[in-house]
Amino acid sequence: MYHHDTQIRVRYAETDQMGYVYYGNYATYFEVARVEAFRHLGYPYKKMEEEGVGMPVLEYQIKYLQPAKYDDLLTIKLAIPEMPKARIRFTYEVTNQHGALINTGETTLVFMNMETGKATRIPAEVNKLLKTYFD
Amino acid sequence: MYHHDTQIRVRYAETDQMGYVYYGNYATYFEVARVEAFRHLGYPYKKMEEEGVGMPVLEYQIKYLQPAKYDDLLTIKLAIPEMPKARIRFTYEVTNQHGALINTGETTLVFMNMETGKATRIPAEVNKLLKTYFD
Amino acid sequence: MYHHDTQIRVRYAETDQMGYVYYGNYATYFEVARVEAFRHLGYPYKKMEEEGVGMPVLEYQIKYLQPAKYDDLLTIKLAIPEMPKARIRFTYEVTNQHGALINTGETTLVFMNMETGKATRIPAEVNKLLKTYFD
Amino acid sequence: MYHHDTQIRVRYAETDQMGYVYYGNYATYFEVARVEAFRHLGYPYKKMEEEGVGMPVLEYQIKYLQPAKYDDLLTIKLAIPEMPKARIRFTYEVTNQHGALINTGETTLVFMNMETGKATRIPAEVNKLLKTYFD
Repeated sequence: MYHHDTQIRVRYAETDQMGYVYYGNYATYFEVARVEAFRHLGYPYKKMEEEGVGMPVLEYQIKYLQPAKYDDLLTIKLAIPEMPKARIRFTYEVTNQHGALINTGETTLVFMNMETGKATRIPAEVNKLLKTYFD
Repeated sequence: MYHHDTQIRVRYAETDQMGYVYYGNYATYFEVARVEAFRHLGYPYKKMEEEGVGMPVLEYQIKYLQPAKYDDLLTIKLAIPEMPKARIRFTYEVTNQHGALINTGETTLVFMNMETGKATRIPAEVNKLLKTYFD
Repeated sequence: MYHHDTQIRVRYAETDQMGYVYYGNYATYFEVARVEAFRHLGYPYKKMEEEGVGMPVLEYQIKYLQPAKYDDLLTIKLAIPEMPKARIRFTYEVTNQHGALINTGETTLVFMNMETGKATRIPAEVNKLLKTYFD
Repeated sequence: MYHHDTQIRVRYAETDQMGYVYYGNYATYFEVARVEAFRHLGYPYKKMEEEGVGMPVLEYQIKYLQPAKYDDLLTIKLAIPEMPKARIRFTYEVTNQHGALINTGETTLVFMNMETGKATRIPAEVNKLLKTYFD
């Protein structure tokens, strides 16, 4: 299993008039967590797109347990539970600065050839870097 | 079953550099569909909050089938499949102007007393309006 | 002078915990107003990009007079005060459903060749359509 | 003069299909810079709202010089050029990781009593903390 933690400070723009982080904004937080996880792995997502491979999201689900609030310092615990093939699954746990569990989520993405728009294999370099975490 | 269709034009701000509607933005589209469904029912969501009842989201899931693109005119087909109690479930189907299915989603929300932050019953007036669709 | 009015319903996602439309969201509303103004003129902005011309923003300013709130039905009064050349200036007045003036804004954009990233002339067809409003 | 630098990593969600940071997103970046500047000063903005004082924006302007792009690491150089009274002016300079100037901006905010919605004086503690930078 590969895992990585990312911290995100809640912005004022991300709150709504209920005083909560708007429920749609966690998708952005999870994307930030994925990007930082790839950077930490040694293969920035930006590089992947430059080499012609994108990672659109196929499925996304989230269960909200408590609201996050303005200026909270959230920790996104990301995991890649299985060695990916054409698809890659990520799980997320969000906690706030008091250790309270805010929500849990999951996304499935696909490696896509950005020219053809078709699914492709996991890039060889990403495969190699990830494998060391699954032996 | 209660259902209602809402049309949404994709904004430039909602695209990302892949040229797609960013995957996180559908949560906002679904919220717009819920709001328009309540307005059409005869009980605007704004009125509900003014009377002290909010509707935070407990669960959200979405499956992405095809990307939506800039300036697309999307139709959000919303349904309330069961008569709600403390919780209310909505399903969504998004199609574009060519009739292509873009994604399908589902959210579960709870009626919440906004003063206490605790779950409450469905407001009596909403209950009455919805019941006529479930007999 | 060319002018066009666009109506926008404030989304829950666009509010912040002050209960106002977040101050950054008007840039999106103004973009929607520009897009609808071009559509009404007879030359959709989408077509312009498909023909290789984009319109990045060079300058933006806004004065906030009153807050807009959730579910408000705003009217964006857009004007193109002068016949554009390489640059095009838009002015905006936002009012709510009670006629109250919410804010006034202004943007200057440039016509850009999207391949070279350099400024270009106003597309001939846009020029022709706009000219009829400036004689 | 008081000044403070904040670093912000561009998120995928913040790009548009032109491949640039959407022009409206800098308002959020500037808000983050203000919040971090107040935290660094010793008086978090969150505390100010908890004590009943908000800071709505009255005026905002920005000149775009170059686009920022996905994954750029931006530096927001914020300054408070004059000792504030009921109003407070901030200026901003955004540069990317190569030192290129991306844009320059300015906002004027007002201290507001959040119960009455009326302008109020700068909170005494903020006044004291800021004064040491203007002697």
